[in-house]
Amino acid sequence: MNLHTIDTPALILDEAKMDTNIARMRDKAKSLGVTLRPHLKTSKCWEVAKRQIWTPEGPATVSTLKEAEEFAAHGIKDMIYAVGIAPQKLHRVAALVRQGVDLKIILDNVDSARAVSRFCQEEKLTLKVMIEIDCDGHRSGLKPQNPEIVEVAAAIEAPAKLVGVLTHAGGSYDVDTHEALLIRSRAERDGICQAAQMLRSAGYDISIVSVGSTPTALTDEDLTGVTELRAGVYVFFDLFQAGVGICKPEDIALSLLVTVIGHQLEKGWVITDGGWMALSRDRGTANQKVDQGYGLVCDINGKIIEGLWVSGANQEHGIISARNPEGFDPKDFPIGTRLRILPNHACPTGAQHPYYYVVNNSLEVKDRWNRFYGW
Amino acid sequence: MNLHTIDTPALILDEAKMDTNIARMRDKAKSLGVTLRPHLKTSKCWEVAKRQIWTPEGPATVSTLKEAEEFAAHGIKDMIYAVGIAPQKLHRVAALVRQGVDLKIILDNVDSARAVSRFCQEEKLTLKVMIEIDCDGHRSGLKPQNPEIVEVAAAIEAPAKLVGVLTHAGGSYDVDTHEALLIRSRAERDGICQAAQMLRSAGYDISIVSVGSTPTALTDEDLTGVTELRAGVYVFFDLFQAGVGICKPEDIALSLLVTVIGHQLEKGWVITDGGWMALSRDRGTANQKVDQGYGLVCDINGKIIEGLWVSGANQEHGIISARNPEGFDPKDFPIGTRLRILPNHACPTGAQHPYYYVVNNSLEVKDRWNRFYGW
Repeated sequence: MNLHTIDTPALILDEAKMDTNIARMRDKAKSLGVTLRPHLKTSKCWEVAKRQIWTPEGPATVSTLKEAEEFAAHGIKDMIYAVGIAPQKLHRVAALVRQGVDLKIILDNVDSARAVSRFCQEEKLTLKVMIEIDCDGHRSGLKPQNPEIVEVAAAIEAPAKLVGVLTHAGGSYDVDTHEALLIRSRAERDGICQAAQMLRSAGYDISIVSVGSTPTALTDEDLTGVTELRAGVYVFFDLFQAGVGICKPEDIALSLLVTVIGHQLEKGWVITDGGWMALSRDRGTANQKVDQGYGLVCDINGKIIEGLWVSGANQEHGIISARNPEGFDPKDFPIGTRLRILPNHACPTGAQHPYYYVVNNSLEVKDRWNRFYGW
Repeated sequence: MNLHTIDTPALILDEAKMDTNIARMRDKAKSLGVTLRPHLKTSKCWEVAKRQIWTPEGPATVSTLKEAEEFAAHGIKDMIYAVGIAPQKLHRVAALVRQGVDLKIILDNVDSARAVSRFCQEEKLTLKVMIEIDCDGHRSGLKPQNPEIVEVAAAIEAPAKLVGVLTHAGGSYDVDTHEALLIRSRAERDGICQAAQMLRSAGYDISIVSVGSTPTALTDEDLTGVTELRAGVYVFFDLFQAGVGICKPEDIALSLLVTVIGHQLEKGWVITDGGWMALSRDRGTANQKVDQGYGLVCDINGKIIEGLWVSGANQEHGIISARNPEGFDPKDFPIGTRLRILPNHACPTGAQHPYYYVVNNSLEVKDRWNRFYGW
């Protein structure tokens, strides 16, 4: 099996690039003196996850209970399910905890805290709870200075147990300079430390102080007061992260292998079998300085072909054109030509595929790794 | 199992609405006097497909060879793989044809025609070929008046066999009035008939003259000269099709069941566990007259709650807000509340899920149907 013979569209994972990305984040966390708790939501694949974690039992972060269950089956014990808990999901959390998984849940309001406490009392089970803090107005969580944080803590009653605070600097995705990232990274640290301090002053034992987003993690200079760093998309990187400025397109470990199936010469189009079903509908770079369309075009070896982009996509058709059409001849890419597309966003592109075809500095497919999906 | 107890996010299929949509398209084809060849790409599910086809052996349309293989395993014989063939895929086509599947392929250029002919000669196998016509400059295909159509036909050499012409009025997705749709529908018919006529004049036997897109199919008034109609997304419909004007939001058979996990009161946000991983990244309505965000909000019974929309989404978080925030209290939707989201586009939303949870005029889940994915 090699990149000339496998069926397309196919998701290609460059193992050497992935390993470099993993090492970069591991070294970064080490230099900051914090625990790295990799987020496994991007790959949804044990073969990738086991390279990200640094002990067989974790720590790790997940975004769905399906991920928690799948990775628990492979032996990971220390996990945070980093999406606000819905009371209806507690039975699945309980099943994992009873199997010996140290799965922590998060919440940001008194009602959820009461529902969790009631569940723990009824089930005679301790669940570890963290309070979600909103450091940048991006999504969920309580603002660091909000006194409701202490009310939520008070509503977490035994046998439920408050163990920490968590925030995610999702707003870091909206900036693209080191200076702006540094402001986000400091705000993330300062916000979470302020919340931890408020709870400690109120008498709570806060052992986990958790921050993270790939852009802030790679920008952080001083995480005094923080105990751990979460990050996920760094494992593959993507064009969006390149637009934020924390990687180069050449660092992206994930690409879509496609085959040329036609041309529209008048329009300067090369048509491939890699449409949005295989690339995902993500157009995250549309609002960045450089709009990358549905992706950048590489040759079969993964070398970027300057000036080309996936300018459009249908369900099973990708349209490649030149940013400057002058002098571009689509016929330079004859029927059957294989190309590789770097995606806007590794998480949704990965999610369209049942497998990764793994390569390492050659066209040979050395392995095929399964990924799972669903909730 | 009912909509209060199943885990969220979950893809809900309203069987009664689906049946109505299926009957509508079947009646339409009948009234036009053409064969309906339903496209099965939207559902990727045998339980849905078997309700769309009108004999156990088809006819049907597919967008991937995976679909062809899956549906062939359930007994469908007469299929068109309606994406331009890549020569590297012919081995999978041949395997199906040798099993007795009447799978037709399409192409729009001499190079592909030669590659198919060479393959058929080497394999001593007849593959049925159709020429793709471009009726509206939307995607692939040769313009109806392009003399290259005859050159492509000439390059299809025995034992490969030219059997027909096919077009897809994808441009119909860009309009939103009956008058504009009628122009697209007539252009689709006129274009394909012109191409068929050119080939017949050159001595070719053209038995299949195939048109289709859900918007033109439901608009067509006279398909004289056309033998068959293809359409796919009509089976579920979606907000995009409602924006085009060929269905109402109340006709949409697919929705995402979500659970409220938090609020941001200052911003007027209700936060749910239905993010873009479950809804897809499709923002197709963004360029329509009414931008529906990531979807419209219904109560658990599927009744639209006027004035609300999914205004934002993260990977596993959906943000619901009011178009007019005045007087909207997010706390009217407490933690644990279940809501149903109507999607922008049924095809990518469906593709995020391993199952359909089937309901029929009640909250009871009467069945869980598997869907497949990949290529």
